[in-house]
Amino acid sequence: MPIKYPNGQSFKQLAVPKKAAPVQFGKRGMNFESEINATNEYYLAHGIAVIHKKPTPVQIVRVDYPQRSRAKITEAYFKQASTTDYSGVYQGYYLDFEAKETQQKTSFPLKNFHKHQIEHMQAVLDQGGIAFVLLHFASLTETYYLPAEPLIQFYLEHEGLKSMPITLIRENGYAIATQQIPRVPYLEIINSLYEVTDHR
Amino acid sequence: MPIKYPNGQSFKQLAVPKKAAPVQFGKRGMNFESEINATNEYYLAHGIAVIHKKPTPVQIVRVDYPQRSRAKITEAYFKQASTTDYSGVYQGYYLDFEAKETQQKTSFPLKNFHKHQIEHMQAVLDQGGIAFVLLHFASLTETYYLPAEPLIQFYLEHEGLKSMPITLIRENGYAIATQQIPRVPYLEIINSLYEVTDHR
Repeated sequence: MPIKYPNGQSFKQLAVPKKAAPVQFGKRGMNFESEINATNEYYLAHGIAVIHKKPTPVQIVRVDYPQRSRAKITEAYFKQASTTDYSGVYQGYYLDFEAKETQQKTSFPLKNFHKHQIEHMQAVLDQGGIAFVLLHFASLTETYYLPAEPLIQFYLEHEGLKSMPITLIRENGYAIATQQIPRVPYLEIINSLYEVTDHR
Repeated sequence: MPIKYPNGQSFKQLAVPKKAAPVQFGKRGMNFESEINATNEYYLAHGIAVIHKKPTPVQIVRVDYPQRSRAKITEAYFKQASTTDYSGVYQGYYLDFEAKETQQKTSFPLKNFHKHQIEHMQAVLDQGGIAFVLLHFASLTETYYLPAEPLIQFYLEHEGLKSMPITLIRENGYAIATQQIPRVPYLEIINSLYEVTDHR
């Protein structure tokens, strides 16, 4: 008894022209991460893809039980993530990515990525998954899909210390035309790079 | 510049006889979840698969900054998970599962699964992912791989209210012979059910 989604449309029908005017996230009071989350909610609600943001990893030290019904965490600390923030499945493909934004205009600071995350992306590639990053240049209102391969190569060559020039990102990545709904249609890049067949 | 794993062996070489004596987790002071985590660490360290447990979802209400270096969460609450606990990639396949144990001997209580998780598993199947549950009967020291399809069907037929009889689990699932290392070799079931090709 399969669960029915409200919208039976195929992805192709939902696709929008790539030339849509870019949406300036900052001006609408939403940051890039929220835009990605909204995009994933759209994909999920329409049965297009199942992509979730992992919860923030927290080390829980002390929990109080003031009422039986609801435990209260009274001491906890943020932990460094060992993987990327987003993962899920799209038409049989395992997707794994990180979404980051910068105010800089000429390069993207690699300190946004931890060594663990870079290693994780390489491990995902080795397993036949699709790993990438979504980079948003807020001041330029430009958004890029950058495959993990050139990012990892640049990161290892510079030991994670440098910023990646936007010229290199443009050369190795793909611009995403942001729009109203879904806001950051990154799956269109996947469609253009991989053979995507509707499994439903 | 691909990252090298310490062990270049292929999965086939690492596979162990299926008739290994079952390991009794309880007696070694480890619960089933820890055994699954240890199994995933083994798979990761040997470059066999990249499977991670998602962090516990926590709603953070208040954070203090006693020192600049380390933020302290002083009020937070557990949130219900909207997905399953485990996901990752194995030779191009998206895997998604939940691991649960029970002390019961004749059936598995479905209250262990939330409606959201059942819906999530159906969405994963619709996207061509592999969804399943690992069920451990602690008193019987029996462990099963149960595909999501029969679980979802039983859950929807009984509105999540009933327990699933062990006879049905044995009929629709696959026994996993637990062992020392890796402790719960559930990928062997995947190997027997799907066409697995080494992507490396």
